[in-house]
Amino acid sequence: MSNPTAAILVIGDEILSGRTRDSNLHFLAQELARVGIDLAEARIVADRHDGIVEAVRALSAACDHVFTSGGIGPTHDDITADAVAEAMGVPLGVRADALAVLQAHYDRMGVEMNEARLRMARIPEGAALIENPVSAAPGFSVGNVHVMAGVPRIFEAMVAGLLPRITGGTPLLSQSYRILRGEGEIAGPLAGLAQEFPDLLMGSYPFQSGGAYGANIVIRGADGARVHEAMTRLAAIFPE
Amino acid sequence: MSNPTAAILVIGDEILSGRTRDSNLHFLAQELARVGIDLAEARIVADRHDGIVEAVRALSAACDHVFTSGGIGPTHDDITADAVAEAMGVPLGVRADALAVLQAHYDRMGVEMNEARLRMARIPEGAALIENPVSAAPGFSVGNVHVMAGVPRIFEAMVAGLLPRITGGTPLLSQSYRILRGEGEIAGPLAGLAQEFPDLLMGSYPFQSGGAYGANIVIRGADGARVHEAMTRLAAIFPE
Repeated sequence: MSNPTAAILVIGDEILSGRTRDSNLHFLAQELARVGIDLAEARIVADRHDGIVEAVRALSAACDHVFTSGGIGPTHDDITADAVAEAMGVPLGVRADALAVLQAHYDRMGVEMNEARLRMARIPEGAALIENPVSAAPGFSVGNVHVMAGVPRIFEAMVAGLLPRITGGTPLLSQSYRILRGEGEIAGPLAGLAQEFPDLLMGSYPFQSGGAYGANIVIRGADGARVHEAMTRLAAIFPE
Repeated sequence: MSNPTAAILVIGDEILSGRTRDSNLHFLAQELARVGIDLAEARIVADRHDGIVEAVRALSAACDHVFTSGGIGPTHDDITADAVAEAMGVPLGVRADALAVLQAHYDRMGVEMNEARLRMARIPEGAALIENPVSAAPGFSVGNVHVMAGVPRIFEAMVAGLLPRITGGTPLLSQSYRILRGEGEIAGPLAGLAQEFPDLLMGSYPFQSGGAYGANIVIRGADGARVHEAMTRLAAIFPE
């Protein structure tokens, strides 16, 4: 498989403190699977400059794409743009195109531009804007790093605008099979099957239901015929 | 603040593929906040040996505690114990105490021990077992790394047994205040307040509700009187 790889970097004290349960990571994981981009890693870091810089550098070097969530609003704890610009080694300043988008939005709303709102027009040099159809303040792509808002409704709208611009690969096809036996009985035959089908990914996800042990076996791969072949073999070993 | 720091490492393809939405991270974030351990970072990695080893090493060096979730069952994709043992530089083998716990459980259930189930008795040398009151197979603590199951019900039970053994710090106290104005108006005064109270953490979490813009301002700190003082000032600047 040579699909493009990706990492997600969620930025925000509120997730790490347990105050907020993140939803952007799961949303983007599903979207990336749909377009054939393999999510290799996810990280959540606090609103601290050095930690964000370090994570952006590491993930940008390791993956084809990095998607960030959070920290691009007007308040003092919104420091993502500064950190990403430093990580990517490019200057950051108010940019005319971003300012025009914001000014038009505030004019429509009858709200005045001020220093805090102006912060949201600060975009790294050479970055492409990501449209924000909800509250105007844009995200941006600089190098292979795509910087988006943390508010889920805005994040999701930005992803919808961004993903068609990114070249995906072959989406993995997936089949799952529910087996009402303990994983300890399933493990041996499943390991044998995994060795016979090295081109497929096989995962076992145990559950307990009403005192009974069972597992959902998920088989994934780019070739649907192979997935079906392996699944047929598994069903023959563990008939319903 | 000199509370102990922690990282969470969630291990599992099923989270990164978007198939499953993780809940252990949010659960543990809340539990750690309660006992005064500061969650500094979270990572989610795939079921790949090298990636797990690398993440365990990095997080174990950076934080006082690392909590892992997932990959300690009997199937071929359960490789966490091997990776953690390698990361911590200790041998891994079937241990008598873990085997006794498992054997007693299978005897009670009338199920036979087999090669797959025996895998769950493989514990790194010198590790302390973490009790699993749900399905017996234990987790373990080796050095500052605490290895637990991914199934939420088991993970939560293991955390409940483990946390009292770990020395926490001063839980941060938190107050929040809802302001029905755009963040662009709140940002200036809030930044001034944050500078006046450098011992406190102030976060702004915007929302939109029925077309109106607003933000929840969260102020956190170890000293409740200081949090109250800052919050009183904030409420005076933005009266309801």
